[in-house]
Amino acid sequence: MDDKNISQAVIARLPRYYRYLGDLKDNGIERISSQDLSKLMKVTASQIRQDFNNFGGFGQQGYGYNVEYLYDEIAKILGLNEKHNLVIIGAGNLGQALANYMNFERRGFIVKGIFDNNQAICGKVVRGISVQHVDGLEKFIRKNDVDIAVLTIPKEGAVKTAEVLAKCGVKAIWNFAHVDLNVPADIVVENVHLSDSLMKLSYGIVNGSVE
Amino acid sequence: MDDKNISQAVIARLPRYYRYLGDLKDNGIERISSQDLSKLMKVTASQIRQDFNNFGGFGQQGYGYNVEYLYDEIAKILGLNEKHNLVIIGAGNLGQALANYMNFERRGFIVKGIFDNNQAICGKVVRGISVQHVDGLEKFIRKNDVDIAVLTIPKEGAVKTAEVLAKCGVKAIWNFAHVDLNVPADIVVENVHLSDSLMKLSYGIVNGSVE
Repeated sequence: MDDKNISQAVIARLPRYYRYLGDLKDNGIERISSQDLSKLMKVTASQIRQDFNNFGGFGQQGYGYNVEYLYDEIAKILGLNEKHNLVIIGAGNLGQALANYMNFERRGFIVKGIFDNNQAICGKVVRGISVQHVDGLEKFIRKNDVDIAVLTIPKEGAVKTAEVLAKCGVKAIWNFAHVDLNVPADIVVENVHLSDSLMKLSYGIVNGSVE
Repeated sequence: MDDKNISQAVIARLPRYYRYLGDLKDNGIERISSQDLSKLMKVTASQIRQDFNNFGGFGQQGYGYNVEYLYDEIAKILGLNEKHNLVIIGAGNLGQALANYMNFERRGFIVKGIFDNNQAICGKVVRGISVQHVDGLEKFIRKNDVDIAVLTIPKEGAVKTAEVLAKCGVKAIWNFAHVDLNVPADIVVENVHLSDSLMKLSYGIVNGSVE
């Protein structure tokens, strides 16, 4: 399958399909038509068919999609059939919130280590994992086959930390620091800029909803 | 100014302009050309000019934009010149992380109350604010001129809570629960689906970066 030309907009919609299909599966639904999925998700049936055609269409028959098959196929496309080891850098409230979020582990994202530069926090146990000092970060990453680093530190240290992470062979950075990182193009960066999100919300209040 | 036809893509880029202009301002830069801003932000100068033309162009002269003027104008467009009272519903790690994030307050987002349905957490003080039981939520919102509700609760309670919030006149919901809310169209909903973000990152690892 040649995924290279699939637009980012399509990719961005896959997790939402995955979420709805997971709910259907949990509710014992075995098949669903694109029309019914369309009503449920409030997108057009033609959008759904177009999106799925990027991946060969997932074999819709006259009587709709097989929910479990579709769910599993989307999981594979999203890489959720593989395990990813991750480290969290920054053991503040946000880092701890992410460490404690059980669903990530269910989907194959395994928290291997939690790091902080504050000695006072080091040794604190978060979800069974003892917070370590960042001095040991590089060695830990190389030793533990870590794919993903989660950056939950203030923006001041984030750019430099990202450069260190790039050097140790991390494949992806989930960036919560409020700054754009500067890493080689082969490292995946997914930004969660909470302030930006809050500003969009504020815009919506003043100017009317934009969606 | 007629904002009604401004696309969501343009709006979504405004907070990033605002962030870069704030950094320039903090560094004492008074003017910047679209070319220099383009290099700094790694977007084309033509994109910048097109985006700004939606708002009248911000009076660029031959020698570039006035940084402070541009910063203030974008702040106004984003509604950051107004104060917004907010409540946080869900006093877990994520709710506490958001409550403790000082920058929000600097931009006019004032945390008025924090709520939880767990009696054991009620009374706990987070950033000077005592966590209250959700039973008092409706009354509190009506009394305290609350614009924004932040939902940091599991998805099970989120849809129902959003309906209650809509009834009490909240203008916007910042939704961290992993579910789509069902509220009237005049209520602004800004979703932060962390799982979706992590799946996009996972896709990038397996298929190569998409950005």
